[in-house]
Amino acid sequence: MATAAEAQAMRHAVALAARGLGHTSPNPVVGCVVLDAGGRVVGEGWHQRAGGPHAEVHALRAAGERARGGTAVVTLEPCDHTGRTGPCSQALIAAGIARVHYAVADPTAQATGGAATLAAAGVEVEAGLLAEEAEAVNEPWLTAMRRGRPFVLWKFAATLDGRSAAADGTSRWITSAESRADVHRLRAEADAVVVGSGTLRADDPHLAVRDREGATQPLRVVVDTDATIKPGARVLDDAAPTLIAVAEDAGVAHLPRRPGVETVRLPRAETGLRIPALLAELHRRGVRSVLLEGGPTLAGAFLAAGAVDKVVGYLAPVLLGAGPAALADAGITTIAQALRLETADVTRLGPDLRVTAVPVTAIPVPAVPVPVPVAPAPLAEEN
Amino acid sequence: MATAAEAQAMRHAVALAARGLGHTSPNPVVGCVVLDAGGRVVGEGWHQRAGGPHAEVHALRAAGERARGGTAVVTLEPCDHTGRTGPCSQALIAAGIARVHYAVADPTAQATGGAATLAAAGVEVEAGLLAEEAEAVNEPWLTAMRRGRPFVLWKFAATLDGRSAAADGTSRWITSAESRADVHRLRAEADAVVVGSGTLRADDPHLAVRDREGATQPLRVVVDTDATIKPGARVLDDAAPTLIAVAEDAGVAHLPRRPGVETVRLPRAETGLRIPALLAELHRRGVRSVLLEGGPTLAGAFLAAGAVDKVVGYLAPVLLGAGPAALADAGITTIAQALRLETADVTRLGPDLRVTAVPVTAIPVPAVPVPVPVAPAPLAEEN
Repeated sequence: MATAAEAQAMRHAVALAARGLGHTSPNPVVGCVVLDAGGRVVGEGWHQRAGGPHAEVHALRAAGERARGGTAVVTLEPCDHTGRTGPCSQALIAAGIARVHYAVADPTAQATGGAATLAAAGVEVEAGLLAEEAEAVNEPWLTAMRRGRPFVLWKFAATLDGRSAAADGTSRWITSAESRADVHRLRAEADAVVVGSGTLRADDPHLAVRDREGATQPLRVVVDTDATIKPGARVLDDAAPTLIAVAEDAGVAHLPRRPGVETVRLPRAETGLRIPALLAELHRRGVRSVLLEGGPTLAGAFLAAGAVDKVVGYLAPVLLGAGPAALADAGITTIAQALRLETADVTRLGPDLRVTAVPVTAIPVPAVPVPVPVAPAPLAEEN
Repeated sequence: MATAAEAQAMRHAVALAARGLGHTSPNPVVGCVVLDAGGRVVGEGWHQRAGGPHAEVHALRAAGERARGGTAVVTLEPCDHTGRTGPCSQALIAAGIARVHYAVADPTAQATGGAATLAAAGVEVEAGLLAEEAEAVNEPWLTAMRRGRPFVLWKFAATLDGRSAAADGTSRWITSAESRADVHRLRAEADAVVVGSGTLRADDPHLAVRDREGATQPLRVVVDTDATIKPGARVLDDAAPTLIAVAEDAGVAHLPRRPGVETVRLPRAETGLRIPALLAELHRRGVRSVLLEGGPTLAGAFLAAGAVDKVVGYLAPVLLGAGPAALADAGITTIAQALRLETADVTRLGPDLRVTAVPVTAIPVPAVPVPVPVAPAPLAEEN
């Protein structure tokens, strides 16, 4: 059982972890609070960026000798493998920590085992304290580890009648300034932002994060099967790195070759590219969370592939009666096949509604755990 | 200024008025509370059905002699014309009422003037107490009186991506049982329920009110330009009266001729029938509130005609990616013409969201007041 002080410490550790959102990939976000033997807070820390010290190390440094005989409260099972700073399990043992509370077990093959190592060294270990809150703050990373592919959040903006643009293609602005600012928050928290070539042609989007101090720019990913992107597209500027995904047989001679812009060839699907192959490529590059920004065709392909983990819809109190739908063919032809969601949250953003929902139709999960690449991924400095 | 007791009485009067919803058309709903000279409640009443006594008469009867020197609190300006029971202004004067608080002025030519009559007889008259609440409970009737046509509430049910059915036309059930029960409440409160021939063919709807004790069945209206309705259509049963609106040149020989089913001929529009002509016909028949249940084409025609006063959307947390949209052509081709709404309410109904919104784009209102027919309308026994 956890004491009230330990529960409070875990709540704070979750808040600390959240400060790392958008900066730690391919690592999880982690928060840690160290209590001395008397239950007083003597150190705290969070994993601030991939390559930097883990949360436990920050907290133990702050605590110093006061950690001896104390308790470490940490949102994720301490790691047990050697990165740049050595395993956290060893650091906790060396600091003389007597008791460890962690919220969520580490699902990765190479990091798991921390709890066992600590217990073998005589440290009292308990799991599960505020597990739900700690799961939620690490949802993208935990989902990525469990599914063996990046967490995918599909964001759409539409009118009440489900249109993402008017009949002539105009769409600025359907949603409010408040909604658009919220999308920048989602981008800042994501490792990659993905759009299709239709959106590219229609909107020439920039996809970088604006107006958020200290934000890490996401990788901009363009699913451009036939390599139709124009050299002057805004997504090709130097505000953030860009990956152009094209078909294996696409002609790419005209694509820009310069630092920050990469091209990757992927197998074709019936229409477009194979979504699982795209996600595997992004996973290989250390992307753990994807913000799918559309358009309707690409969103349909992701949904048909069972590759959407969460949906955020910005619904504007507007009616159009014509124009492209927010979602195109997802392989659903009759009501029994409808993709049913569970609504997690409804928030009013200015005049708009933001609806957050999670698919309840089973998304196929690999029967055997997909091993996470052990070799350092391109974006990773340490895990 | 109103006393606290008078304000409380008005709040109760509004609640009393609401009990008449769905039963009083073509009359308004009205509630009345009578306080004696000491401010104690001595009588209350509401207009229960067209043809029955007005709210004031019910309340004065209950109060009897205790009304003398007292205050009448009433949601709508007391009428000043002779119906079956004589003008309420005279009844209040005869009962010795010293003071009248009414919330909202009567906008109709033949009933207005009650306040002036009361004042001329030495009664102290004040207007505006809880006017907003009293407006809201009488919204359909007041709107009908001001616009010279029935109040129109457009109801739609759709997925999060704006589909009202799957690609193969199946739609049972997109929304939840809670949402469907709420629609029966709307039907019970409406004087008429309107659908187009597309919905008729696709869904064979019944349109009567179910599972609501004491509900007055609405007039079922089928907009069936080319008279394609099948004799076995469920809407033609005897659960409620039905009006089939067809084009002036439509062949109607095959339409059923029996009590409870009527046919009316209306001028054609570019597609379908002229909406203003339909609404004028319904208004003439005493219909003051219309629940427009679709489908997308008819809803588009109503919106294009500026003939939707309020929108209620039941949004289910479901994605389809294909299938008919909830709203078809409303004459909007570019984003600047979008019909913008103001969201009045968002409520979760089981898993669904119910969004209630009001068009903010100006709806054309006749420049001169449209006189309300003075001759008794078919559904009216008294006003």
